[in-house]
Amino acid sequence: MAAASSPSSLHSSLRSCSKISITSHLSFSGSSPGFVKIPSRSGICSVGRICAAPLRSQANPVKVSASAAPVMDKPDSRVSTVVDVDLGNRSYPIYIGPGLLDEPDLLQRHVHGKRVLVVTNTTIAPLYLDKVTSALTHGNENISVESVILPDGEQYKNMETLMKVFDKAIETRLDRKCTFVALGGGVIGDMCGFAAAAFLRGVNFIQIPTTLMAMVDSSVGGKTGINHPLGKNMIGAFYQPQCVLVDTDTLNTLRERELASGIAEVVKYGLIRDAAFFEWLENNMHTLLARDPIALSYAIKRSCENKAEVVSLDEKESGLRATLNLGHTFGHAIETQAGYGQWLHGEAVAAGTVMAVDMSFRLGWIDETIKKRTLDILQLAKLPIAPPDVMTVDKFKKTMAVDKKVADGLLRLILLKGPLGNCVFTGDYDRNVLDETLRAFCKS
Amino acid sequence: MAAASSPSSLHSSLRSCSKISITSHLSFSGSSPGFVKIPSRSGICSVGRICAAPLRSQANPVKVSASAAPVMDKPDSRVSTVVDVDLGNRSYPIYIGPGLLDEPDLLQRHVHGKRVLVVTNTTIAPLYLDKVTSALTHGNENISVESVILPDGEQYKNMETLMKVFDKAIETRLDRKCTFVALGGGVIGDMCGFAAAAFLRGVNFIQIPTTLMAMVDSSVGGKTGINHPLGKNMIGAFYQPQCVLVDTDTLNTLRERELASGIAEVVKYGLIRDAAFFEWLENNMHTLLARDPIALSYAIKRSCENKAEVVSLDEKESGLRATLNLGHTFGHAIETQAGYGQWLHGEAVAAGTVMAVDMSFRLGWIDETIKKRTLDILQLAKLPIAPPDVMTVDKFKKTMAVDKKVADGLLRLILLKGPLGNCVFTGDYDRNVLDETLRAFCKS
Repeated sequence: MAAASSPSSLHSSLRSCSKISITSHLSFSGSSPGFVKIPSRSGICSVGRICAAPLRSQANPVKVSASAAPVMDKPDSRVSTVVDVDLGNRSYPIYIGPGLLDEPDLLQRHVHGKRVLVVTNTTIAPLYLDKVTSALTHGNENISVESVILPDGEQYKNMETLMKVFDKAIETRLDRKCTFVALGGGVIGDMCGFAAAAFLRGVNFIQIPTTLMAMVDSSVGGKTGINHPLGKNMIGAFYQPQCVLVDTDTLNTLRERELASGIAEVVKYGLIRDAAFFEWLENNMHTLLARDPIALSYAIKRSCENKAEVVSLDEKESGLRATLNLGHTFGHAIETQAGYGQWLHGEAVAAGTVMAVDMSFRLGWIDETIKKRTLDILQLAKLPIAPPDVMTVDKFKKTMAVDKKVADGLLRLILLKGPLGNCVFTGDYDRNVLDETLRAFCKS
Repeated sequence: MAAASSPSSLHSSLRSCSKISITSHLSFSGSSPGFVKIPSRSGICSVGRICAAPLRSQANPVKVSASAAPVMDKPDSRVSTVVDVDLGNRSYPIYIGPGLLDEPDLLQRHVHGKRVLVVTNTTIAPLYLDKVTSALTHGNENISVESVILPDGEQYKNMETLMKVFDKAIETRLDRKCTFVALGGGVIGDMCGFAAAAFLRGVNFIQIPTTLMAMVDSSVGGKTGINHPLGKNMIGAFYQPQCVLVDTDTLNTLRERELASGIAEVVKYGLIRDAAFFEWLENNMHTLLARDPIALSYAIKRSCENKAEVVSLDEKESGLRATLNLGHTFGHAIETQAGYGQWLHGEAVAAGTVMAVDMSFRLGWIDETIKKRTLDILQLAKLPIAPPDVMTVDKFKKTMAVDKKVADGLLRLILLKGPLGNCVFTGDYDRNVLDETLRAFCKS
C-alpha cells in the first residue's frame, strides 16, 4: 500500500529544512491503517515535527499510495495535521483535521484581547456561527463576540461591503486589542483580512476557512483585498493571520460546484511544482469528490505545504510566488468579464489553466501528454475546460492589460515548461502564440 | 552667538548612534555665518554624517543660540539637511531645505518604474503640480506622470475620496512598478500613502509635504489612513515612503493659520522629550512665524529627528510612540465633534495639549510654570488654547471612548510628568481628575 520515505530522502529533507523553514507535523488520534501510512512506518510522528518536501526534485517525505483504498469506515482514522507557515515574526500554524471546531483551546490560544469580531456571510452564519462563538467563549467568560454577516458572493467583495465591517467594528467600539475572525470562503477571508489589516492600522486576525478553495489557497500567504469594478483584488494588503483553523467537517455542507472549484487550485500545485502530487490526484480524484476526510486532509495539507514553501521564499511576490497564479490571468479576465459571482474563482482558474497549458504546448514548452492529462483531470473534477461564450479576444486582452502581473506595460504569464511539475513566470514569449490561444478559445 | 557641541557631548552622541540608528547630515551651499553655527565650528560636516541627539538628557550636538538673529539677507546661507529614518529595510531619507524641487535628481533617484501618479488637491495643484511634474521628468523622457486632484480639506479624508485615487490608478492602468507621489499636506499624505499601501497590495510611495504640519508630523513614521464618520484615522496602514522631500520654499504659500497649526506639533516635541528645543522655540517663535528659512529648516529637522528617534524604537506604536500623541485624544474629539475641516488638526492639538497639560497639573505631576509656558508659547503662535463652545463633557467622553489608544476598554492618555520634556503614556490616573479637566474646559 503506502510507501514511507526512505531514510536518505528524509535526511535530505531535514537538512534543507533549515533553509526553507516550513515545517509540518502530524498527530494521530488513533491507529491509521489506511492509505496515509508514513507516520507509523517512519516514526516521524514521534519526534514531533518533520519538514515538508522543500523542492519538487527531491523525494516527497510524505508519500501516499495512489492506489490505496479510502478508509472512510474506520472510526479511528482521524488525522490532525499542522502546517507551519514560517515568515519570521509573522509565522503562523494551519491546523487541519475533522472536528477542530470542537477543540476551543486551539482557537482561544490565538485570540488577543477580550473582544472578537466574527466576519461571515448569510450562507455560513446559520451553519457555523453558533459553533464558532461557542468555541471562542467555551470556558472563557471574559471573551465577548460580535459578528457581522455579509451577503454571500464574489460580487460583494467590494468597498461598500468592506465598509460594513468597519462600521460594525467602530460602532461596537472595538479597540486595537481585538481579534477579527474570518468564517467563510475566500471572499470572507480576503475581506476580513483586509479589514483586519486596515482597522486601526492593523488588528489580530484568525481564519476559519469553510470552502476547499479557501483552505488550499487563501489560508496561506496573507493576500487580502477587495475587487474594483475594473479588476479583481486591485485593493488590498499582505497581512498574515495568527492561525488558520481548517475543520474538514465544514466541507460536508459545501456545494459540489464549490468543492470542484477548490480542486482546481489543488490541481494547480501539482502542475506547477509537484508531479507526484498531480499523480496522486489523478488516482484519487473520485475519493476526493466523495469527500473522504483523509483524502481531503492530505490534499489540503499537501497544497498548503506547496504554497507555504513558495510564499516563505517570496512573501511579497517579487517572482517565484507569481507561479501560484497559473491560469489566473486568463481566469481573472473570465471572472471580470462574466460578472463577479457568475463563475466561481476555481471554475475560471480551471478554464484559465487549460488556456495556459494550451499556450505552453503551442510554444513547444511541454509535450502533448501534459496537455491531455490536464484536460482529463479537470474534466474528472467536473470543472470547465473552456471560457464562457461571452468571452472575446478583445475582452481577454482588455482585462489582462490591467492584471497585477503587468510590469512597465509587459504582460507576464505563468506557463508550463519542461516535464510535469515545472513552470516559468515570464514576459518573454511570442505574442502571436498568445493571440493563437485566445482565438482558439473565443468565437470572436 | 551659537554654541557648538563640546567634544564630550559629541562623543557621547556618536557612541549612542549605533544603538538608535537615526542619523542626520547637513550640507551647506556656502559659508553660514548665521545662527546655525555648529558645522563650521565643530567640523562635523566634513565627516559627512552626525548622529541626532538620541536622548533628551544628553547634550544636543546641534545647538542653536536662542538669541541669534536670523540671516534671511545672506544669499549663501542655504542649508540642506537630511534626516535618515532608520527602520531596517523600510528606511528612508527626509531631505529638508529651500529649492529642493529644483533638484530633479533628488526625486528621480527614488522613483521606481516608469510611471508616476501624483496625488494632490485643488489648492496645491495650481501652485506646484507643474513644478513637481518637471522635477520628475526633467532629463528623463521615459517617465510618464499622471495626476489626480482631490478636493482640499480634512472633511474629504474619507473612503469616497480615496476611491478616486484607485479609480485613476486603475483607469490609467498603473502597475506594480509605479510610484505614487503625495503632493500636499497631511490629508494628502495620509490618503496617498494608504492608497499606495493598498493599490495592488502596495506600490512605491514618495511624500512631498507642502504644509509645516505634514513636514514635521506625517513625514515620519508611515502612518497613513482615512477617517470614518465615527472617528479619525480609523482605517489605514503603517506604510513607509521611499523618501520625503521637504522644500521649505513651499511654506511661502501657506496660510498663516496652517503655519500655526504645524507649530502646535513642533511645540509638542519640546514638551514631551526635548526641553532644549522647547526653549529654542520660546526664543525663536517670532522668527518662525516670519518664515525665516533657516529657522524653519532647523525646527523641521529637530522635529523630524525627535519623531524618527521615537518611531525607530517603536514603529507599530506598542507604547513609546503613543507619546507623540500628546493632546491628540482631546484634539481628535474636538475635530470629530466640530466636524472635520472646521478646526485644523494643529489647532485642535493645541487646545488638546492645553487640556492634557491642565490635567497633568491637576494630578500634581508637573509644576505650574510648565502649564504657564505651554499656554504662553501656544498663544504666541496664535493657536487656540481652549476647545470650541460646541464641546461638552459628554461629547468629549463619547468620542474619546473610540480613540485608538483605548485598550480593553481603558482610555490611556499622554500626560506630562516631571521636569519639562518628560511625559508618560498611561491609563493609571484618577478618573475624577479627567472629569475635572473636562468640566473646566466645557460649559456643559
